[in-house]
Amino acid sequence: MFSISRRSEVEPFHAMDVLAEATRRRASGHPVISMAVGQPSHPAPQEALDAAREALAKGRVGYTDALGTARLKQGIAAHYRGRHGLDIDPLQIAVTTGSSAGFNLAFLSLFDAGDAVAIARPGYPAYRNILGALGLKVVEVPVTAETHFTLTPQSLEAAQQDGVRLKGVLLASPANPTGTVTGRQALKALADYCAANSIAFISDEIYHGLTFAGEETSALELTGEAIVINSFSKYYCMTGWRIGWMVLPERLIRPIERVAQSLYISPPELSQIAATAALNATAQLDVYRASYARNREFLMRRLPEIGLSIASPMDGAFYAYVDVTRFTNDSMAFAKRMLAEIDVAATPGFDFDPLEGNRTMRMSYAGSEAEIAEAVERIAAWLK
Amino acid sequence: MFSISRRSEVEPFHAMDVLAEATRRRASGHPVISMAVGQPSHPAPQEALDAAREALAKGRVGYTDALGTARLKQGIAAHYRGRHGLDIDPLQIAVTTGSSAGFNLAFLSLFDAGDAVAIARPGYPAYRNILGALGLKVVEVPVTAETHFTLTPQSLEAAQQDGVRLKGVLLASPANPTGTVTGRQALKALADYCAANSIAFISDEIYHGLTFAGEETSALELTGEAIVINSFSKYYCMTGWRIGWMVLPERLIRPIERVAQSLYISPPELSQIAATAALNATAQLDVYRASYARNREFLMRRLPEIGLSIASPMDGAFYAYVDVTRFTNDSMAFAKRMLAEIDVAATPGFDFDPLEGNRTMRMSYAGSEAEIAEAVERIAAWLK
Repeated sequence: MFSISRRSEVEPFHAMDVLAEATRRRASGHPVISMAVGQPSHPAPQEALDAAREALAKGRVGYTDALGTARLKQGIAAHYRGRHGLDIDPLQIAVTTGSSAGFNLAFLSLFDAGDAVAIARPGYPAYRNILGALGLKVVEVPVTAETHFTLTPQSLEAAQQDGVRLKGVLLASPANPTGTVTGRQALKALADYCAANSIAFISDEIYHGLTFAGEETSALELTGEAIVINSFSKYYCMTGWRIGWMVLPERLIRPIERVAQSLYISPPELSQIAATAALNATAQLDVYRASYARNREFLMRRLPEIGLSIASPMDGAFYAYVDVTRFTNDSMAFAKRMLAEIDVAATPGFDFDPLEGNRTMRMSYAGSEAEIAEAVERIAAWLK
Repeated sequence: MFSISRRSEVEPFHAMDVLAEATRRRASGHPVISMAVGQPSHPAPQEALDAAREALAKGRVGYTDALGTARLKQGIAAHYRGRHGLDIDPLQIAVTTGSSAGFNLAFLSLFDAGDAVAIARPGYPAYRNILGALGLKVVEVPVTAETHFTLTPQSLEAAQQDGVRLKGVLLASPANPTGTVTGRQALKALADYCAANSIAFISDEIYHGLTFAGEETSALELTGEAIVINSFSKYYCMTGWRIGWMVLPERLIRPIERVAQSLYISPPELSQIAATAALNATAQLDVYRASYARNREFLMRRLPEIGLSIASPMDGAFYAYVDVTRFTNDSMAFAKRMLAEIDVAATPGFDFDPLEGNRTMRMSYAGSEAEIAEAVERIAAWLK
């Protein structure tokens, strides 16, 4: 009988387990509202849908170059020109199968087994799980109100006290689940620290376009050495299309391409065509963005009223990270009961913080305003 | 300055490099015919395109469960009932982002760094490259006419002479690039050998439906312990949609699901919807299959006539693996010149066989009959 690997003993991504359970309940007729997974309730913009429809009419959907089509790479380069005033060579851009592939490719091409990589706690669980599955040492650096919930050179120094030598630092801004937006100065300090210490700096910018307070800065504005990861899933409302991208320092392009050729062959072509069109749909997307902004205002007011105090900034992305201490010491059981009893799905904080997440929950506010309001009223009644 | 990992020093997938160069040449007006990459020139079946169009009209394309939609899993289970008379629980099926994700998930969940896994040489290069990137020991077992180009218990025993202890065996039937179809008895012998020696047996069945000589057997007919990997890319003509599937022994489901949740989130939803419809399109697909069969007959006759002798069975899949010894000792340079001088793209054997592939080339015959005929006549004139 064959055996199962040790490295597959990663934690489940509980949000995905909650999603699976929500899907089952919905299929059997329950009026489930999901705030569990970070995905907009809006469809992809009309331009993207039209482009996909046109491509379907034309026929074959095939492999593209491993790092994506030239048209999409040119479109992304134009996006950086227009939005950030940056001149990025399209050849520095790697289109990936969601940002998930971007993280995996970055980790594989930058780090060897045993290398140490710092991430924020609380933070996106897939970081920890992918790093773990690839045999890397995950250094979770706690972030708190004291440092505005972001990493700092000082906290990275502290993390390297007991013989640990960092090979990489991964920071998201806006961050999941905390909503932290790391400002220009703080981001620059981190990039400089990494450069001075030969540490690879990976900047997760997948929530760009969704900053509601503070300044949104791309690491590309500050350094030519950052590995930037972005995605069409969030601002562009294209989760299920699975398209992301990376912007790479020149010497990393070929290693990433080699690994991508074997590991992914190519990102899905239809999604690349739709994504190319989505880049021009900012008018429609900014309407959606305004609805998240209203959801955010609503939650910042209403959640504390019903006893769920907000645990972190909510300046960007579309999550409320709330403290459930008043009601439970076991967020996992709390999430299960909430889904079973009132058909509202949210994610236990344990996903994001293995140490203290038993006292927190993450609620996505990317759903429609009506849904979010209904979910909160269900929770309010239930908590009484 | 950050450093690049050692494990990203995998070989490029030369077929993808040839594809990239072919794409560039075509974009600048050259009449390129590509036999480089294993993809049908036919579009996905009409049913699949219609289903995708309908889904686009309905709106949001979102995340699905990490192991795919219930509908697609049920459809795949029905396929095994109809085609193989097998009763597979849909819960044993994992839908993946192409078979590429299937291989990666199988390797991650079965093997830890340093474990040894046997593959056939010549064989699919991504096996070797993914295994290498994950820190696994690749044991390339040479296959020749003597063993009908497949692995045998004897060849696996021989591969374990010098202290190597296999943890896994990966076999494709029909095989890429050799076209070898491993018959029922031979497959059973391998499965039994693996079971007796606690070796995980991974059966790559992505070319099922494309067997032109010999018997097509699924490992699922022979053992409950095999990890089966399949795909919608080849028979179903859906390469660029990136959808594959695995059939898993029960105790492997949750480890695979855990890793998939973090590493892929979910396979692309639109592609899953299209794939579900494609399962019912066998009438159309068998028409395409008949065209490959005619291409195969043509190549088996014509290639030797122009000096390219056929190096392996061509019983299944859609590749001619040819010996180019008469013309070159450097298949890579030969492939480059062929593309530059007559705009015909084919893959250097070096992709499939790092030791002897300098003397071989792989030509895909999944293109249209007119294209294949035109390509061969260009090559004939060029070789003179």
